[in-house]
Amino acid sequence: MSNLINTAVQPFKATAFYDGKFIPVTEENLKGQWSVVIFMPAAFTFNCPTEVEDAADHYAEFQKAGAEVYIVTTDTHFSHKVWHETSPAVGKAKFPLVGDPTHQLTRAFGVHIEEEGLALRGTFVINPEGVIKTVEIHDNAIARDVTETLRKLKAAQYVAEHPNEVCPAKWKEGEQTLAPSLDLVGKI
Amino acid sequence: MSNLINTAVQPFKATAFYDGKFIPVTEENLKGQWSVVIFMPAAFTFNCPTEVEDAADHYAEFQKAGAEVYIVTTDTHFSHKVWHETSPAVGKAKFPLVGDPTHQLTRAFGVHIEEEGLALRGTFVINPEGVIKTVEIHDNAIARDVTETLRKLKAAQYVAEHPNEVCPAKWKEGEQTLAPSLDLVGKI
Amino acid sequence: MSNLINTAVQPFKATAFYDGKFIPVTEENLKGQWSVVIFMPAAFTFNCPTEVEDAADHYAEFQKAGAEVYIVTTDTHFSHKVWHETSPAVGKAKFPLVGDPTHQLTRAFGVHIEEEGLALRGTFVINPEGVIKTVEIHDNAIARDVTETLRKLKAAQYVAEHPNEVCPAKWKEGEQTLAPSLDLVGKI
Amino acid sequence: MSNLINTAVQPFKATAFYDGKFIPVTEENLKGQWSVVIFMPAAFTFNCPTEVEDAADHYAEFQKAGAEVYIVTTDTHFSHKVWHETSPAVGKAKFPLVGDPTHQLTRAFGVHIEEEGLALRGTFVINPEGVIKTVEIHDNAIARDVTETLRKLKAAQYVAEHPNEVCPAKWKEGEQTLAPSLDLVGKI
Amino acid sequence: MSNLINTAVQPFKATAFYDGKFIPVTEENLKGQWSVVIFMPAAFTFNCPTEVEDAADHYAEFQKAGAEVYIVTTDTHFSHKVWHETSPAVGKAKFPLVGDPTHQLTRAFGVHIEEEGLALRGTFVINPEGVIKTVEIHDNAIARDVTETLRKLKAAQYVAEHPNEVCPAKWKEGEQTLAPSLDLVGKI
Amino acid sequence: MSNLINTAVQPFKATAFYDGKFIPVTEENLKGQWSVVIFMPAAFTFNCPTEVEDAADHYAEFQKAGAEVYIVTTDTHFSHKVWHETSPAVGKAKFPLVGDPTHQLTRAFGVHIEEEGLALRGTFVINPEGVIKTVEIHDNAIARDVTETLRKLKAAQYVAEHPNEVCPAKWKEGEQTLAPSLDLVGKI
Amino acid sequence: MSNLINTAVQPFKATAFYDGKFIPVTEENLKGQWSVVIFMPAAFTFNCPTEVEDAADHYAEFQKAGAEVYIVTTDTHFSHKVWHETSPAVGKAKFPLVGDPTHQLTRAFGVHIEEEGLALRGTFVINPEGVIKTVEIHDNAIARDVTETLRKLKAAQYVAEHPNEVCPAKWKEGEQTLAPSLDLVGKI
Amino acid sequence: MSNLINTAVQPFKATAFYDGKFIPVTEENLKGQWSVVIFMPAAFTFNCPTEVEDAADHYAEFQKAGAEVYIVTTDTHFSHKVWHETSPAVGKAKFPLVGDPTHQLTRAFGVHIEEEGLALRGTFVINPEGVIKTVEIHDNAIARDVTETLRKLKAAQYVAEHPNEVCPAKWKEGEQTLAPSLDLVGKI
Amino acid sequence: MSNLINTAVQPFKATAFYDGKFIPVTEENLKGQWSVVIFMPAAFTFNCPTEVEDAADHYAEFQKAGAEVYIVTTDTHFSHKVWHETSPAVGKAKFPLVGDPTHQLTRAFGVHIEEEGLALRGTFVINPEGVIKTVEIHDNAIARDVTETLRKLKAAQYVAEHPNEVCPAKWKEGEQTLAPSLDLVGKI
Amino acid sequence: MSNLINTAVQPFKATAFYDGKFIPVTEENLKGQWSVVIFMPAAFTFNCPTEVEDAADHYAEFQKAGAEVYIVTTDTHFSHKVWHETSPAVGKAKFPLVGDPTHQLTRAFGVHIEEEGLALRGTFVINPEGVIKTVEIHDNAIARDVTETLRKLKAAQYVAEHPNEVCPAKWKEGEQTLAPSLDLVGKI
Repeated sequence: MSNLINTAVQPFKATAFYDGKFIPVTEENLKGQWSVVIFMPAAFTFNCPTEVEDAADHYAEFQKAGAEVYIVTTDTHFSHKVWHETSPAVGKAKFPLVGDPTHQLTRAFGVHIEEEGLALRGTFVINPEGVIKTVEIHDNAIARDVTETLRKLKAAQYVAEHPNEVCPAKWKEGEQTLAPSLDLVGKI
Repeated sequence: MSNLINTAVQPFKATAFYDGKFIPVTEENLKGQWSVVIFMPAAFTFNCPTEVEDAADHYAEFQKAGAEVYIVTTDTHFSHKVWHETSPAVGKAKFPLVGDPTHQLTRAFGVHIEEEGLALRGTFVINPEGVIKTVEIHDNAIARDVTETLRKLKAAQYVAEHPNEVCPAKWKEGEQTLAPSLDLVGKI
Repeated sequence: MSNLINTAVQPFKATAFYDGKFIPVTEENLKGQWSVVIFMPAAFTFNCPTEVEDAADHYAEFQKAGAEVYIVTTDTHFSHKVWHETSPAVGKAKFPLVGDPTHQLTRAFGVHIEEEGLALRGTFVINPEGVIKTVEIHDNAIARDVTETLRKLKAAQYVAEHPNEVCPAKWKEGEQTLAPSLDLVGKI
Repeated sequence: MSNLINTAVQPFKATAFYDGKFIPVTEENLKGQWSVVIFMPAAFTFNCPTEVEDAADHYAEFQKAGAEVYIVTTDTHFSHKVWHETSPAVGKAKFPLVGDPTHQLTRAFGVHIEEEGLALRGTFVINPEGVIKTVEIHDNAIARDVTETLRKLKAAQYVAEHPNEVCPAKWKEGEQTLAPSLDLVGKI
Repeated sequence: MSNLINTAVQPFKATAFYDGKFIPVTEENLKGQWSVVIFMPAAFTFNCPTEVEDAADHYAEFQKAGAEVYIVTTDTHFSHKVWHETSPAVGKAKFPLVGDPTHQLTRAFGVHIEEEGLALRGTFVINPEGVIKTVEIHDNAIARDVTETLRKLKAAQYVAEHPNEVCPAKWKEGEQTLAPSLDLVGKI
Repeated sequence: MSNLINTAVQPFKATAFYDGKFIPVTEENLKGQWSVVIFMPAAFTFNCPTEVEDAADHYAEFQKAGAEVYIVTTDTHFSHKVWHETSPAVGKAKFPLVGDPTHQLTRAFGVHIEEEGLALRGTFVINPEGVIKTVEIHDNAIARDVTETLRKLKAAQYVAEHPNEVCPAKWKEGEQTLAPSLDLVGKI
Repeated sequence: MSNLINTAVQPFKATAFYDGKFIPVTEENLKGQWSVVIFMPAAFTFNCPTEVEDAADHYAEFQKAGAEVYIVTTDTHFSHKVWHETSPAVGKAKFPLVGDPTHQLTRAFGVHIEEEGLALRGTFVINPEGVIKTVEIHDNAIARDVTETLRKLKAAQYVAEHPNEVCPAKWKEGEQTLAPSLDLVGKI
Repeated sequence: MSNLINTAVQPFKATAFYDGKFIPVTEENLKGQWSVVIFMPAAFTFNCPTEVEDAADHYAEFQKAGAEVYIVTTDTHFSHKVWHETSPAVGKAKFPLVGDPTHQLTRAFGVHIEEEGLALRGTFVINPEGVIKTVEIHDNAIARDVTETLRKLKAAQYVAEHPNEVCPAKWKEGEQTLAPSLDLVGKI
Repeated sequence: MSNLINTAVQPFKATAFYDGKFIPVTEENLKGQWSVVIFMPAAFTFNCPTEVEDAADHYAEFQKAGAEVYIVTTDTHFSHKVWHETSPAVGKAKFPLVGDPTHQLTRAFGVHIEEEGLALRGTFVINPEGVIKTVEIHDNAIARDVTETLRKLKAAQYVAEHPNEVCPAKWKEGEQTLAPSLDLVGKI
Repeated sequence: MSNLINTAVQPFKATAFYDGKFIPVTEENLKGQWSVVIFMPAAFTFNCPTEVEDAADHYAEFQKAGAEVYIVTTDTHFSHKVWHETSPAVGKAKFPLVGDPTHQLTRAFGVHIEEEGLALRGTFVINPEGVIKTVEIHDNAIARDVTETLRKLKAAQYVAEHPNEVCPAKWKEGEQTLAPSLDLVGKI
C-alpha cells in the first residue's frame, strides 16, 4: 500500500454545477489557493445532504482561510443541478458540485468502490501547489465533521507558513506550536 | 490508487513495550475488540510525545468504548522502553508501544516514507473482525486531535450495531441518526 | 470488430427504480421473456425524456407482445427515482429505469463513451434465452423511433416461432413471409 | 465490447458492379458525401433481393438527400453482375453492388459470420468525413425497413448542420427539434 | 517452405451444389475412394467454365477409375447453383461444386490468394485414406489439362496397388513399370 | 499452408555439372530467360534416369522456347559427374545437373523430405524475372510427363506476352485463347 | 555468493549524531581517509554498548592511524542521541553514531536481518578511495575485538603504501613483511 | 548484498591431501563437530605458507576445542601434496589441504576472484550443524591472525552452549558474559 | 565449446552399402564391440579414396582388435554403391560405407560444414558401450594416418581392460604403462 | 555439436612459466607463427610429465618448422614453476607452461571437465592467423604421440603454402601430394 500524502493531484477533466452554471474543472483549478475536496457517495441519498449542508454552513470560514471547497460524486453535473434545486440542504451550497461519471477523480484519490461505482467518504486538504497534505476516508456509513477538516486546513496552512514549527496534538488556530530543536530530542 | 477501507489488516509480527514488558503483537491481537492504530514518525521526536500524551489522556474513554490503542513507530521495542522511561509525556501511556523496525506495519497501512524509513501520522479505526473502517493520514508536520478519533470510533460502533441507520454529518454519540428509506431519496 | 448478434448477454448486477421501489436486476431478469434494452446518455438531459416518453406511449404494445422494456443510464437508481418524480415525460414510464454507475451494462453492450462516462443511444432486442437478436446504436444527437423497435421485436418473434420462414424487407406483423427453398435460389 | 459510432471507416479495397461496369471502391469513395452501407448475407438468396429492391425503390430519396447507397456481400463482383442480370428485384438497383470476397468490409464493420463466411444484415449511415453515425445489425432472419434508414440519415444530416440542436424521439424531417440549454436540465 | 505431399487433408466443412441439391461436404467425404480436388478462381469467370467442362467431358473416365471429382471456388453454394443453371459449360458438371466462402479449403490446400479472396488453379489427387499424392498449382492465367490429371491418378493408383514397382517418366496406364532392385542402382 | 506461385525464387548457392565442367549456380542464373527446375530424389536410382532422359529428349523444344532446364538432387556435383558418365540415360543430358547437398534448394522449393534427406519429384516453371508460375509435386513413386511441363511453359509464355488473354482448359500452343471481358462474365 | 572485497561502497544518505549535533553522512564521507564502519544490532541492547565502548577506548589509536570510526544501527539519529546521553558506555563515543532507519546501509553492506529489521555485527575497513578491503561479520551473539580491527587497518594501510610487499600471517605494525619475488615461489 | 551468516554450507565435492593420503571431502565432513575453513589464494605463493604455518602452530588448541581446520585453495590435491612436501611451513600442517579446482567452494563461500581463478583470504567458523557463524574476508595482501579466529571459535561455542548469554566486546574464554534481560535495556 | 569425449553416440538412422547389400545402421550397431567412425567429405573426390584405401589396408588389424570400421559421407548409399564399384581404391573396402544425406551423423559428431553440406575429416574411437573415447578432426585439406588411429584404439582398449593403469606418451601396444599411485605424484 | 576447425582462437589472458620467468600469454601470442597448443589434465600427475617430455624431445623439430609449443593445465603458473623445478621430465621443457586457473582456455578449446575442473588431453594445430586447423582430444587415460602432431603440423603447413594441392592419407613431409582436378573426380 502506498498513499497520497505529499503527491500532486493527477490530471483530470470534469464538469461542475456552480453558481447556476456548468463549468469545467481540472487539476489546474486546484492550484493557486488551498482546496478541500470532499467526496460523497451519491446525489439524492441519505446523509450526503447533511454533509453538504455542514460544509455550506462553514463555507464562510473556508473562504476566510482562502480555501475553495469541492463536493464530488460519480453523478453527472446534470444530476448535481437537479440535486441543488430539489434538496433544501444541498441548495445551500455555494461551492462547485463536481460530477465524476468517468470515475477519474474517485480513482485518482483512491476512493472508488468498484462494485458500486460510487465514492467513499473521502476528504483531502490540498495546498496551493496542488499537493495533498491530509487524507481522511470513511466507510460510507460514518459521516465526517467539517470542523475537524477546518482544523486540519489551518494547521496545514500554519506549518506551510512557518516551516520551522510543528503543530502539537489537537492544535487549534492561535494555540502554541513547537519549534523542533536538537535540545528537545528525547526531552518531551 | 486503491485504499484500505473495508479491507482486513494484513498479517504482521512485531514486539511492543507494554506494561513494563516486551510482548509479541500480530494481526490476531486486532481481532475480538475495536482497535485504534496510531502511527508516529519516530520516538524521541517533537510533537510525537504530545500525540501520545493526548491519546493517554483519553485512554479511559477508549477503554470504556471497548477499544485498545496501539502506538506504532519504526523504532525498536528497546527504544520504546527507553522512550517510555525518559519522556514524561510518553510515560503516561498505558497501551502498547509497538516497534516496527521491519517496516511491515508501515507498509501494510500505507504510511511508510521510503526516503526516511519513518511513518506518516496515520490513524486507523479497526473493527473486531480486523477490518479497517476509517483512515486518516497527515503530512508529519500536522498533528491530530484524538477527540475526533474517538468520535469516529463511536460512530463506527453505532452503525455496526445499528445496520439500518447512518450517522449524519458531525454526529456525536447520543445524537440522532438517519434511517435510510426510499422516501428520503431526493428529499433531504 | 466483432459484434453482439446471437451472443448471450453477459452477467451483470444493477439496481432499478421500478414501480416506486428499488429492485435488483441481473442478466437472469432478461430470460424467460423477450426484452428490449434501451440505453440513454443521462438522466435529466434533453431528448432522453422524449425517448423514455415514446417508449412509455408504446409500452402497452410491448407488453402485449410479451416483452419487457428496460431503460438504462450510467446514473444511480437514486437519480432515476428523482428523474421519475420530477420529469413529466419520464414519470409516464411504468418499466424499470436501471442505474448503471459501475458501467457494467454500457461496457457489456458496447455503448460506453470513455471520455464522458455516459451511454450511447443503443437499443437491443433480446430473446427469452437472453440472446441478442438486433443491435441499433446512434450517435447521441440522433434519437430513435420506438415503432421501428416494435417492428423488429415482432419480426424477431415471428421467425423465432416459424424457423422455416424469413421476413422480407420492411415486413410488418401480419404481412406475408418467405419460406426459403432451393427453388427460390437465384429466382427472386 | 467497443463499437463503431464516431469512428472512421477503415481502409479497404473492393470491386463493385455498378452501372453495367466493374469499378474499384475504397474508403475514399465514402468521403465527400453521405453514404449508406447495407450488408446482405449472400447473392441469390431469399430475402436479400427484397431488401435490395426496398433500397432501390427509395433510391431517389437517398439521392435527393445527397447520399449514395452501397450494397455489400462476400460474393465476387462477377456474382453481383449475374445477380443483377438474373434477379428481377436486384435488377432495379442503380447503386453499386460491392463484392467483398476478401472479407475486409465485413470484418471492418463487425458483421462477419466466421462459420459461414457471410455478412450479417448491417446498415451504417456514414457522414461525408467517412465517420460512422448510426449502426444497425440484425440476425439474418430479420429484415430491415429502409424508411427507418432514411429517417436516421436525415436526422444525422439535420444535427450535423445544426450542431446546437438535437432531434427528439421519432423525429422526422420537418419536425421540431430541441436546443439543449441549462434551463432544460431536469425540466423535460 | 513445406508441402502437402503425403499429408492428410485437414478437417473442413462446406456445402456443395450436387445433383440439384445442396449437400454438406467434409474431409470424411474424401475417404474411402480416390478423389480429385480441383480449385477454380471464381464462378462466372472466363476460363473456369472451360476447365469445368474439360473435367465434365472426362468424368466417365474418373468414375471408371473409382474417383470422385470436386470443383471448389470461394463462392457460395447459392452462386454455384446459379452458375450451373446459367453456364452451358458448367451445366454439364455431374460432380459436386463445392462453395468455400469461409476459405477453409483454399487455406488448407495452400491455394488462397489473400488480396483477392479467391483460389489459385490447384489440382490435388487424394488417395482413399485422405492423403494427398500429387499437387499441381498454376498462376490463374494458365489453365490445366485434365488428361494429365487422369494420367497422374492412374499412376498413383497403380503404385498404390503395386508397392514394389515405380512408374517411369511419362508412364501411361498399361505401360511397363520398373521394379527397384539393388542391381539397377547406377545401371539405368 | 501458403504456396510459391508468384513468389520469387529465394537466394541460393550451388554447384552443377554442366558441359563437362563444374559451374556455380545461383538464383541469378534463373533470371533473364524462362527456367524449368526439375527435382529428382537421388542420383543412381530407379526412375530418375528415365525422367532425366525424358527431359533430354525434349531439350531441343525447351531451348526453342528459350528455356533452360535444371535437374536438381541433394547429391554432390561430384556424384552428378559420375552419374552422367556412368548412366546411359543421364549421359544424354546437355543441361546443368545441380548438386544440392546443403538442401538449400529442396527447402526453398518445398520439396525436401526430412527423414530421407532427399527431394520429392517437383517441377517448377519460372519466368525471366525469377518468379514461379507453376508448381507440380508428386509422391516419389509417381513419375512426371515432360510434355505436360512443355505445355505449361508455353501457356505461361503466351499469357506473359498477351496479358489481356487467358488460356482455356487443355490449351496447347497455337490454339485459341480467351480475352476476358465484362460481357463474358456469366456467359460461358 | 559474491562479496564486497575491493568493491566501492554504494551511494547512501543517512544522518548521524556526532559531536552533539545531527550531521548528514553519505558515501562521500568515506573518501579521503581510511574508515572503519562498525554495524551493531540496535541501540539500548546488551553487548552493543560494550562494543561501542571498546571502539571508544581505542579511538585515539584509530585517529592516530588517520581513520574515522562509524557506528551504524537501524535506529534513528534521534535514538542515537538519547543512547549517547543515557548509556555510560556509549557516552564515551566521540565518533559518529549513524542512524539507518531506511536500511540502505545494512543492505549495501550485506548485514541486514530481514525478519528483525536489524543489523548483524559487521566490521568493514575501507580505504581512502571508498573501497572495502576487509569484511568481518558475526552472528549477533558473538562480539568482536576492536584490537583485531586495528591490526587489519594497519596491515591494509601498510600494503597500500608498500604495493610490492605483503603482510605475513599475524603481522603487527612494525613487524617484517614479505616482498613477493619469483625466487620465493615454492620456497617458503 | 546478502551474506552467509546463519546459512548452511552448500553441498560440494572435493579432494584433500591429508595425513599422506588423498581423501574425499564434502559438506557432510563439516557436520558433527566445529569446523574452521580457511581459504588461501594459491599454493607455492608468498604469505600463504606463513598463514598455514600459523594455523599449524595453533592446531593443538583447535583440536582441544573440538574443531577441525580445513585449508582450501583452487589448486589440485596433487599440487597440495607437492606443496606439503616442498614447503617447510606447509609441511607442518596436520589438517586437510583441500583442492578446489572446480571452484565449487570458492563460489559457495563467496571468495572467488573471477579474473584470477583464485580465492580471497576468507575464514569461516562453522558449527556442528554445518551453519556458518562468522565470516572474515580480506583483500589478498592482508594476512590474518589465527588467534583471533580461535577467539571467535570459542565465543561461538560458548554462546551455543549458553543460549541465554552473550559475549561482550573482546570477550576471551573464561571471561564474564552478559545475560540479556529487560532491566539491562537502555542501562549499559 | 563443449566436446564429445565420454558422451554416448546420439541416436541416428542411416543406410550403408556393405558386402554388396544395403543395410540399415543405427547407434545400436556401435554397441557390443569397439567402433572406428571415419568421416570423409564426399564420394568421388580426391584424397578420400586414399584414406578409404589406407583404412582398407589396415582392416585386418582393426578386425583382429575386435573393432568395426565405418566410413561416413553425406552422400546416399546409392552413391556409395557406385563409388565402391567404380573406384579401385574404395573397392578394397570390406566395411560399411554409410550414407548420411539427412546430416544426422555429421551434426551429431560435430563435423558438419554448413555452407557445403559435407563432412570434415573426423575420426572417432568408440567403446563397446557406444561412448566416444577419442576425437580427431582435420581441415579437409589435411589427411589422416590410419596407423595413429590404430594406436589410439589399442591404447583405449588397454586402459579399458586395465582401469588402474594409464598409457604414457607415444605408448604402443606391448609397451609399458604407468600405474598411478600417490607416490608418483610430483615424482615423474 | 559444432566444432572449432577453421574458427579463430577466442580472446584469453593467462600467465605462463617460461624461460625462468612469469610471462603474460594472450590469443595475440598465437598469431604470426604456427602454434601447437597441448592441454594436460594437471601438474604433478602421472602420464602428463611423459607427454611434456615427449614434446620437449621433439621441440627442435617444432622450432625448425617455425612453430611454438604451449603446454596448458588449469594449475597456476606458481605450480608450473614448481613442477618445472621438481619434475625431471617437465624440467626439459623449454616452451611456455601456461596456467589456466580461470578455465578460460579449457572452455574456449572445449576440453574442460566440469566435474573435475581439469583439462582433457587436447592438441590443437593453429595457423599464423590464429585459426585452428586440427583438433585431437582424448579421454585422459589415453596419451598422445607427438610425432603424429608433427606430421599434422607439416601437412597443414604444406597445404597452406600450396593451396591447389591436398595431402593424401598418411602423407609425410616430402611425399607426393594430389592436385585436385575435374579429371580425378570418380577416378581414384
